[in-house]
Amino acid sequence: MLKCAVLGATGYTGAELTKLLLAHPHVRVSLLTTRQEKPIALREVLPSVSKDIKLEITPYSLDTVKKKADVIFLCLPHTEAMATAEQFLAAGKVVIDLSADFRLRDKKVYETWYGVIHTAPQYLSQAVYGLCEVYREKIKKADLIANPGCYPTGPLLALIPLIKRKLIDPGSVIINAASGVSGAGKKLVAATQFCEVNENYNAYKVNQHQHAPEIEQSLSEAAGKPVKITFVPHLLPVTRGIFATIYAETTAKATEAVIRKTLQETYQQSPFVRIKAEGQYPSLKEVRHTNFCDIGVSIQKGTRRLVMLVAIDNLVKGAAGQAVQNMNLRFGFPEEAGLL
Amino acid sequence: MLKCAVLGATGYTGAELTKLLLAHPHVRVSLLTTRQEKPIALREVLPSVSKDIKLEITPYSLDTVKKKADVIFLCLPHTEAMATAEQFLAAGKVVIDLSADFRLRDKKVYETWYGVIHTAPQYLSQAVYGLCEVYREKIKKADLIANPGCYPTGPLLALIPLIKRKLIDPGSVIINAASGVSGAGKKLVAATQFCEVNENYNAYKVNQHQHAPEIEQSLSEAAGKPVKITFVPHLLPVTRGIFATIYAETTAKATEAVIRKTLQETYQQSPFVRIKAEGQYPSLKEVRHTNFCDIGVSIQKGTRRLVMLVAIDNLVKGAAGQAVQNMNLRFGFPEEAGLL
Amino acid sequence: MLKCAVLGATGYTGAELTKLLLAHPHVRVSLLTTRQEKPIALREVLPSVSKDIKLEITPYSLDTVKKKADVIFLCLPHTEAMATAEQFLAAGKVVIDLSADFRLRDKKVYETWYGVIHTAPQYLSQAVYGLCEVYREKIKKADLIANPGCYPTGPLLALIPLIKRKLIDPGSVIINAASGVSGAGKKLVAATQFCEVNENYNAYKVNQHQHAPEIEQSLSEAAGKPVKITFVPHLLPVTRGIFATIYAETTAKATEAVIRKTLQETYQQSPFVRIKAEGQYPSLKEVRHTNFCDIGVSIQKGTRRLVMLVAIDNLVKGAAGQAVQNMNLRFGFPEEAGLL
Amino acid sequence: MLKCAVLGATGYTGAELTKLLLAHPHVRVSLLTTRQEKPIALREVLPSVSKDIKLEITPYSLDTVKKKADVIFLCLPHTEAMATAEQFLAAGKVVIDLSADFRLRDKKVYETWYGVIHTAPQYLSQAVYGLCEVYREKIKKADLIANPGCYPTGPLLALIPLIKRKLIDPGSVIINAASGVSGAGKKLVAATQFCEVNENYNAYKVNQHQHAPEIEQSLSEAAGKPVKITFVPHLLPVTRGIFATIYAETTAKATEAVIRKTLQETYQQSPFVRIKAEGQYPSLKEVRHTNFCDIGVSIQKGTRRLVMLVAIDNLVKGAAGQAVQNMNLRFGFPEEAGLL
Repeated sequence: MLKCAVLGATGYTGAELTKLLLAHPHVRVSLLTTRQEKPIALREVLPSVSKDIKLEITPYSLDTVKKKADVIFLCLPHTEAMATAEQFLAAGKVVIDLSADFRLRDKKVYETWYGVIHTAPQYLSQAVYGLCEVYREKIKKADLIANPGCYPTGPLLALIPLIKRKLIDPGSVIINAASGVSGAGKKLVAATQFCEVNENYNAYKVNQHQHAPEIEQSLSEAAGKPVKITFVPHLLPVTRGIFATIYAETTAKATEAVIRKTLQETYQQSPFVRIKAEGQYPSLKEVRHTNFCDIGVSIQKGTRRLVMLVAIDNLVKGAAGQAVQNMNLRFGFPEEAGLL
Repeated sequence: MLKCAVLGATGYTGAELTKLLLAHPHVRVSLLTTRQEKPIALREVLPSVSKDIKLEITPYSLDTVKKKADVIFLCLPHTEAMATAEQFLAAGKVVIDLSADFRLRDKKVYETWYGVIHTAPQYLSQAVYGLCEVYREKIKKADLIANPGCYPTGPLLALIPLIKRKLIDPGSVIINAASGVSGAGKKLVAATQFCEVNENYNAYKVNQHQHAPEIEQSLSEAAGKPVKITFVPHLLPVTRGIFATIYAETTAKATEAVIRKTLQETYQQSPFVRIKAEGQYPSLKEVRHTNFCDIGVSIQKGTRRLVMLVAIDNLVKGAAGQAVQNMNLRFGFPEEAGLL
Repeated sequence: MLKCAVLGATGYTGAELTKLLLAHPHVRVSLLTTRQEKPIALREVLPSVSKDIKLEITPYSLDTVKKKADVIFLCLPHTEAMATAEQFLAAGKVVIDLSADFRLRDKKVYETWYGVIHTAPQYLSQAVYGLCEVYREKIKKADLIANPGCYPTGPLLALIPLIKRKLIDPGSVIINAASGVSGAGKKLVAATQFCEVNENYNAYKVNQHQHAPEIEQSLSEAAGKPVKITFVPHLLPVTRGIFATIYAETTAKATEAVIRKTLQETYQQSPFVRIKAEGQYPSLKEVRHTNFCDIGVSIQKGTRRLVMLVAIDNLVKGAAGQAVQNMNLRFGFPEEAGLL
Repeated sequence: MLKCAVLGATGYTGAELTKLLLAHPHVRVSLLTTRQEKPIALREVLPSVSKDIKLEITPYSLDTVKKKADVIFLCLPHTEAMATAEQFLAAGKVVIDLSADFRLRDKKVYETWYGVIHTAPQYLSQAVYGLCEVYREKIKKADLIANPGCYPTGPLLALIPLIKRKLIDPGSVIINAASGVSGAGKKLVAATQFCEVNENYNAYKVNQHQHAPEIEQSLSEAAGKPVKITFVPHLLPVTRGIFATIYAETTAKATEAVIRKTLQETYQQSPFVRIKAEGQYPSLKEVRHTNFCDIGVSIQKGTRRLVMLVAIDNLVKGAAGQAVQNMNLRFGFPEEAGLL
């Protein structure tokens, strides 16, 4: 059994990841840690665990992690992850980082968007971006996997195959995305208080969200040239889920049928990407608590305007589930182990 | 006191309108009707009314309406309104129609999108589209006012001034809109059951919503040429409110400051349109239960990509409130009477 | 025009009160204050105000309040209100205190439940408990009105008439109450974060809520002997509203019809208390955004078990609305002025 | 592998049950049926299923069910289940009925509360009430298991051990319960439309809910004498979960510690009943999507008033999960198989 440690197990993502790992047939949760000073019973943050499970989340100690874990999941805040990752990589461990610290290959881009100095830039080129369906082969050999952001996951899965086959103009891409509140984490801020979010909906960080450069990096790679997108995130009054409505201009040869077929063929062997039939569109409730990414396609009659609708659960395919899928790929388990 | 009749007072829009008219300083609610066979106490559909108000919603009778009302509000289903309106116009009454029946000037466009024959086409050219801030002068003299749809209201207020001044390319407009559930009315359908909507979010009628031609009609008029838009509506798990995120390409001379200033100047004398300061964006909770339309503006640095955010309450500015505002204009009351 | 000051206008209650006072026909909002150091535009906390209203919420200054206001509403945290009230009472002003500081007549009871020393006990006997329908005559002459807590208001209105007429056994009263989240105010706590409250429901402060002694004080007065109740509050995933389900044993002569009639007669002249007909029960949506208190009654066949259902809006009848109603009584305005 | 059929797989309960059975290690879902005329892809009602699962829900046929299934789960409306069950019992199958048709042993009580004639009364005495933790031994040998109602499950688990040990007065029991909307099923009714439920809360069927006699039947059995309770259900604006707040008078010897210890000992070997520590109470979010029943206990100081708080997921422990648990007991699988 592969021994897994989750660092930062008290947050929404850490708890979700712990839940998935506990149900996984091929791994053992050997350690859960927190930055808090006192141990916390796992059931405090994950009330769904069996009465038999007596696991505790214990204060972080470098040596204990090294001793007890083969693979280390970092559910730490951005900037804290980079320092932590270094220590385990040096000790020959596999690190799956759910923070943003190793997603952007360009140190300067990271520093511009996250507003801090990157202190472990030597690992940026070595880190593999953990978008499973796209970078599967690289992930199988990676020791540092940068788990994608919640917003980028869905749109990248929808756009990359079309850009690679030159079916759309990469420069025309607009991503209108809406996220449930768990995406903002557990920190206490006025914006995520019940009375602020309930019965509300609004855009935020318009043209200024840090996930935009992450999307652009992968789209640029697919296009073979720099791509700039428009990205507007919104806050939904739901706990879980991200829904992206993507607009793009098709090239001359791309009919709706061609685009749908391209996506279906691309993801035929991928257990978690589902392409909707003509006239059918995804919804949050169909992907909630799953690792699925559902994609719907529509082209406006008589135009080249493509609309794609993409839904995932932000805590699963957008975070913890994709992290497990990355672990499955890296350690040779079936890709869907513990996820279906 | 002007005598008002509300036909179809049991629906969400009819009840909201009745509430506004009861609080209006210059009018009297003289008649409320329903297509049901038995009278219903107003308090059944409007529980917020005072104990003193003993009004009933009574079965519809043409003669009673003619006798009792100066202005007639039609909160009837599409297709039913056209037949009803005719009878009151012939009798010299003022009709404010909250259905879609007189919004589209082209009979064929109506018939294509609504799937029925228009039986009162002779009134299509005479009807004035009741988008108060844009067609104020025409509304003051109209006997048949076609109250705008809930989705068109916000985007039109944001886009028309910019198109008129050629600050944006009308052909580039994309409207990504999200509506609360009351927009779907009270009819029993699976899609609006609590368990379907709660914790959910999804697009619907992608590229096929009947409010698209209504938006295109007014934008085409503003542009002086045919305009085709992309319009994707979504269903939000909230009761009230519509939020539109609008994307468009600016022309060379349109900076964010110019666009904001254009909107501010356009609506300086309009009590219900509020333009947000730089870096500020609207939200549903700021317009809920009000007749305001709030507009925010952002241009992505180094590009011509304009993003506009627009929020209204679908039952107020998107329906009943705008109907009252139209009545105020038509009968010479202060524009904000009963609405602030 | 009576000049009103609202101290603590940035909280949910303060904002709601300001909104009501701005719409009131007989008063003028002359001052809004905050404990924060910088002035805040009113529209930041009350986005529904008209574009014309340029009011600011300014840092608190004793002298300014004294100079500018005839009646002072305290929307301050418990313990802060008592010190503040003293200063204005000494200056001959009327104070309507929305905190708990002057609700309990017994200093010791206050200190036990609120865990602090009461520093203005000399005003406890002079303060009038502002439950309008019950203490109307005293309120008309009071200079210090202690506005009731949100939980006590509904149950007291339902129970007091029955206890006074000896129709129920006061010792048998159980109050099972459920409140919307705005009742907890704006302070940042984990328990009111969206992801904690949404799709959740739970009891809290079981047998330990500080509103229990407040309820017991008025019931004891009505009974002419000490009354002890059972009170279990719950948190509802809604923004506004309190719903209480009350259980009690009737005395021999109290049929359901007698109880309903007693309540109807008691509140015949009270514009805000509505008694439901047989088989009809209140709901939060029927009282939301209103000053109504709706009461339903059921006795289980063949038993003496009375069930009463009571609904109010916690921010209106449970706080700001009742404060305005108290002001109306005190200054001789119509009781419903600004509230219907 | 045990072959399972789910009759009525398109409803909320049927879909939840199918999901649990698909993940169960010891059974195979061999048949899913519907009363509709055309087959439906399982993914239409259960979008979380893997892409590989091509199961269909097919129109009901008696012979096919007999041939394909060892155990038959009835997720049918009340009254339809009784006729269907008969046919399979005669054919020697095991039937787990999730309707109310075989829960009440007294034909007359059934007919009074459900308003129809019971057409299979010969099975009433043979049916075993499937409250797993209480009737475990009987369930192991039963061929007709009447799965408990969603409301009775939690309160019965909390009350039966206390009544059996004479720690509370059975005649004093009051159950104040609140349910999520999925409890009402999928039929289209105004009361479960989003705009009616959202931001609302209300009592319904006060003293008239058909689950009261079901609770009374088991409590009477535990008490050895007829027990009459007070039961008031409420509708919560959440999709899943039932929370019951139970009030009762303790007998002289029952301290809070004694009651807690009694419950802990009773359920020590039961994997799904969890007793909260002193001062801790359950919440819906801690049991959602689980088969747990969490119970909290409080006695008001200086009184004999016991308050118990009980939470379950209505679709799991309150329906489909308990049905699987019953199957596990009946067929000798580990009690928690497929449920943890």
